[in-house]
Amino acid sequence: MKLKLIYPFYRKKLMKIQFISIGNELLNGKIQDLNTKALASLCHEYGHTLLKSQTIPDNEEIFHETFESAFKSSDLVITSGGLGPTKDDLTKLMLSKFFNKKIIPSKKAYLICEKQYKRMDREFDPKKNHYDEIPEGFEALYNEVGFAPGLSYKEDSKKVIALPGVPSEFKAMIKSFFEKTASENDLLKEMHLTFRTWRIPEEKIFFELCPDLWEKLEAYGEVSSLPHVLGVDVGVKIKDISQKDEVNSLILNSPLKDYIWHIGRERLEEVIILEASKRNLSFGFSESCTGGLNASRITDISGSSAVFYGSIVSYANEVKMNSLGVKEETLKNFGAVSEETAREMAIGAQKNLHVDIAVSTTGIAGPNGGSVEKPVGTVGIGVSSSHGSSSKMYYYKGDREALKLRFSQMALYTLLEEIRKI
Amino acid sequence: MKLKLIYPFYRKKLMKIQFISIGNELLNGKIQDLNTKALASLCHEYGHTLLKSQTIPDNEEIFHETFESAFKSSDLVITSGGLGPTKDDLTKLMLSKFFNKKIIPSKKAYLICEKQYKRMDREFDPKKNHYDEIPEGFEALYNEVGFAPGLSYKEDSKKVIALPGVPSEFKAMIKSFFEKTASENDLLKEMHLTFRTWRIPEEKIFFELCPDLWEKLEAYGEVSSLPHVLGVDVGVKIKDISQKDEVNSLILNSPLKDYIWHIGRERLEEVIILEASKRNLSFGFSESCTGGLNASRITDISGSSAVFYGSIVSYANEVKMNSLGVKEETLKNFGAVSEETAREMAIGAQKNLHVDIAVSTTGIAGPNGGSVEKPVGTVGIGVSSSHGSSSKMYYYKGDREALKLRFSQMALYTLLEEIRKI
Repeated sequence: MKLKLIYPFYRKKLMKIQFISIGNELLNGKIQDLNTKALASLCHEYGHTLLKSQTIPDNEEIFHETFESAFKSSDLVITSGGLGPTKDDLTKLMLSKFFNKKIIPSKKAYLICEKQYKRMDREFDPKKNHYDEIPEGFEALYNEVGFAPGLSYKEDSKKVIALPGVPSEFKAMIKSFFEKTASENDLLKEMHLTFRTWRIPEEKIFFELCPDLWEKLEAYGEVSSLPHVLGVDVGVKIKDISQKDEVNSLILNSPLKDYIWHIGRERLEEVIILEASKRNLSFGFSESCTGGLNASRITDISGSSAVFYGSIVSYANEVKMNSLGVKEETLKNFGAVSEETAREMAIGAQKNLHVDIAVSTTGIAGPNGGSVEKPVGTVGIGVSSSHGSSSKMYYYKGDREALKLRFSQMALYTLLEEIRKI
Repeated sequence: MKLKLIYPFYRKKLMKIQFISIGNELLNGKIQDLNTKALASLCHEYGHTLLKSQTIPDNEEIFHETFESAFKSSDLVITSGGLGPTKDDLTKLMLSKFFNKKIIPSKKAYLICEKQYKRMDREFDPKKNHYDEIPEGFEALYNEVGFAPGLSYKEDSKKVIALPGVPSEFKAMIKSFFEKTASENDLLKEMHLTFRTWRIPEEKIFFELCPDLWEKLEAYGEVSSLPHVLGVDVGVKIKDISQKDEVNSLILNSPLKDYIWHIGRERLEEVIILEASKRNLSFGFSESCTGGLNASRITDISGSSAVFYGSIVSYANEVKMNSLGVKEETLKNFGAVSEETAREMAIGAQKNLHVDIAVSTTGIAGPNGGSVEKPVGTVGIGVSSSHGSSSKMYYYKGDREALKLRFSQMALYTLLEEIRKI
């Protein structure tokens, strides 16, 4: 009975949302859409349901048909893109036609634009972009990051929000909108349980290791299994929050427990920084094949500077020797991609960066540079700390981009394991 | 008249495509969809039109309705996701229901699976994942990267392809499909002209600098304007390939010419590597606030090792002093984020990495660490080469992620300018 009391209570305040991304550039491969994921994360955080996300070209007919069906089946339609100053920016026009409204100058829009331009030390000139003109009955939304204002419109119980396509502007505006409409749905987050595993393939989990786990978990709510880079997330969306501990103990008493590196949705980088901070450990990298990706992933996280000191990206062998002290004979006898070089790179980084733990990567990301003994996808990962130093070779499949990410993921896994040893 | 001869000739062989991405994880923010962009790029390259891309949850009803409308209005529907071994993988089931087919074991699918597993030194066991069972009348597609086979189906002149959601598998399979269906449409690529500009905002281009450019260009075909990180791409999709030089000279004789850093769709990283290689110049970085992002972006490009030697990621001040020779007084008197420190970091990197050009970044990516004099978004960029050394402060807006990217973009622009000076 608790189920029925709790779930609808958090559910009923929340919106069903459809998202429409507008822009030819998204459909000809010029740019990567980042807004769907940003919106999806925020929907998840605030307890809304993102029903569907669609990407369409700058085309009136397709807009009309797509918008119509989205508007019919949701509480809120959010669009992104097409609000800029050039002639291919059609969103304002398309919305005005859809709702049969004239586009007219708005005093509020004008004031918002004035404020937005002032913030960037520039002067707003409506003749240049007509940002102050919006469809009648629509409301202009403040854009704290860019210039073009957003638009909001309400018809009966349904709402439309049109936002700029630039990811930083979109994200800031959607966040501020959700914040305003937020209610006490914090508990909702706790109802999504995520068990992050490593070093076991998805089908092994559910067909060999714990063949009855999926069904057992389903008694508590919707189960999901999501393969990641070198890992699988097992998720349970429990219906009754009081059963959280039961689900946790079910999993932690199953053979899966040996493969779980984290319970929760936090990113690997965040877990590393948190655990290093707790133990007051500093770390750094020496990177050949990952080419700075390890360091860049860690420094994506605010607060990383407390524990991350630096990385020596040594793409050239000379840099491996000069900046990391890798011996010329090691490179000559074993090659740059070898356990020996990986170990010396880790030792050199620990010493030169003055860190508690250093992890190194040296491998072949391809598409060229492979050989029969060391094909594309081969990587050596070294680690050096107060526990001494060691290194290991791994082998993965994939294109250059995928391999860089896999190499980096295994390096960060190695780092997390080493942090937990100390 | 040439227009009518050329355009339809290349057009008629090409497909109108709709794409459907299936998976709850794409709509709750767990993962970033990479397949739409990969597909869009390949459509562009092979001359197909991607009409629409939709992301939907693992839900039969939504699938049915979405698939039905997509199938109606395109030559080919491509789906991604939902082919894995777990119970939330519903694509096979949903397609079999849509086309009213039974799911039956397929000999060809079995052989493909056997081959795929063998490649990874594992044995295929159909009981574990039923990969060999597919809807009647469907064809199994080889997956050269992962385990789950794809599916293909033809009804009258319309086609359906169902592929795995894992980006590396999706990309490899879609590429191989397009290759098989490709015709001689190489010329098509040349019909998309892209002029990449920097250091001028979008509205300045079309409202101040060249107010009549848009209309002049429209005489040749569809015009587009796409803001990027610290830059704008002006695009013209010309209808008649013989007018290419005319469009080029129109733009290169306009005031826009001073802001164009590249003509073509190549990435900044590629242009840098190409131009450094041509001049036989090596380069490297010292990175504080970009935290390895500069190096990682450059090493994303195959062939970068010929000109890129390395990067010293000096997040901690100790690393700036020890590994780059930044003076303690400089840090004390001017701070880590200053023209002086940026300059010393560049000099230190040029010396220690033994490169022709080194570019440095030191700034505040936030959200913490800003002050009144040096707010979040402040960055110093230094450069050191045979031309001597210099540095400059810049200031940008955005969240941590956006700022890291803007800092990095300006550093790479600075590098490209320096390469062209030598």
